[in-house]
Amino acid sequence: MDKKKNISMAVIKRLPKYHRYLRELMENDIDRISSKELSEKIGFTASQIRQDLNNFGDFGQQGYGYNVKELYNEISAILGLTKIYKTVIIGAGNIGQAIANYTYFDKVGFSVQGMFDINPKIIGLKINDVEVLDIDFLDDFLRKDNIDIGIICVPKNSAQKVCDMLIRNKVKGIWNFAPVDLQIPEDAQIVVENVHLSESLLTLSCLMNDDIN
Amino acid sequence: MDKKKNISMAVIKRLPKYHRYLRELMENDIDRISSKELSEKIGFTASQIRQDLNNFGDFGQQGYGYNVKELYNEISAILGLTKIYKTVIIGAGNIGQAIANYTYFDKVGFSVQGMFDINPKIIGLKINDVEVLDIDFLDDFLRKDNIDIGIICVPKNSAQKVCDMLIRNKVKGIWNFAPVDLQIPEDAQIVVENVHLSESLLTLSCLMNDDIN
Repeated sequence: MDKKKNISMAVIKRLPKYHRYLRELMENDIDRISSKELSEKIGFTASQIRQDLNNFGDFGQQGYGYNVKELYNEISAILGLTKIYKTVIIGAGNIGQAIANYTYFDKVGFSVQGMFDINPKIIGLKINDVEVLDIDFLDDFLRKDNIDIGIICVPKNSAQKVCDMLIRNKVKGIWNFAPVDLQIPEDAQIVVENVHLSESLLTLSCLMNDDIN
Repeated sequence: MDKKKNISMAVIKRLPKYHRYLRELMENDIDRISSKELSEKIGFTASQIRQDLNNFGDFGQQGYGYNVKELYNEISAILGLTKIYKTVIIGAGNIGQAIANYTYFDKVGFSVQGMFDINPKIIGLKINDVEVLDIDFLDDFLRKDNIDIGIICVPKNSAQKVCDMLIRNKVKGIWNFAPVDLQIPEDAQIVVENVHLSESLLTLSCLMNDDIN
């Protein structure tokens, strides 16, 4: 497994895209693909692709291309997709509901075990078969169940409090949609991935700005 | 304006974060900040910050730090936030509604002019005072109004069709939430920013994977 270690962040960020394209190839019954063909589809250069995939083992064979299924399985393993992740969604507004309704996440192994909200109008609703519970039950729920990932979809003022509770209960990953940088103690064994929508929109307007292009 | 040109993509990606932090400083009535203090808040190194901000003019003064308001205004200008963007949201499901309800976007100048969907149960709803129209009206709406940004929140199978319609009607920017890479003709004058949620979640699970850490 030595080859897997020390994969750079830049490569890690590209892996999900490889995963998505390889999955589509499999769905279209394509068994082999050359780095050149993959390059045309995915938009990275062929040499970039060969370099990236070289990190994970010998899947390319000169003149034969990559075995799609083997490569897909290997990338799935590196992405940690060979097990089921138990998740909770905190904040069952539009974003929380969107995630709960996104069947792809369930398909690749992210299973929503609980949803929590503070709003009496939302508590009790069933979203994709999961009942929204009062957020007062969250601490207890985390303590009893073995939750892997907390998905934070609450407003920014409540996000840190939820984050602290997730850390206290040994959750291993946080997917954060609140527009705030969470404070994580240095000794916490937890990984955070942010989706900062406002930063994405401002990147778009920046790229549309003729002054800098 | 020469200093503004040729700002690298890496710097552009960091600008929205500066913008967010400077906005918070202003809200807390802080007038000046040193690169060291800003570094502690924002998490970039002080030297990184000095280098980044040096792209836009002389805002730092040795020993005095940065003038928060001037820097905020300058970064706002570079981010293209000195004007109002007319936007439409295509797909008024959970994600589309979340965006329409996010008041921050309106505050910084992104104004939702129309929402469109194919689902009769959603058509006619008012989301944050904007009525959801039948998607059949989209082409007409784009032709008559001068829409700057199309926000694509439809399922992946319909996304390219919507994208083509936006390009045909000279929309300048696309904010794409569909899990697909849109095909853009080389001669199209349009900028695309993607929010690929599944790629973000897979990055999280990858970082949680002990095999590579």
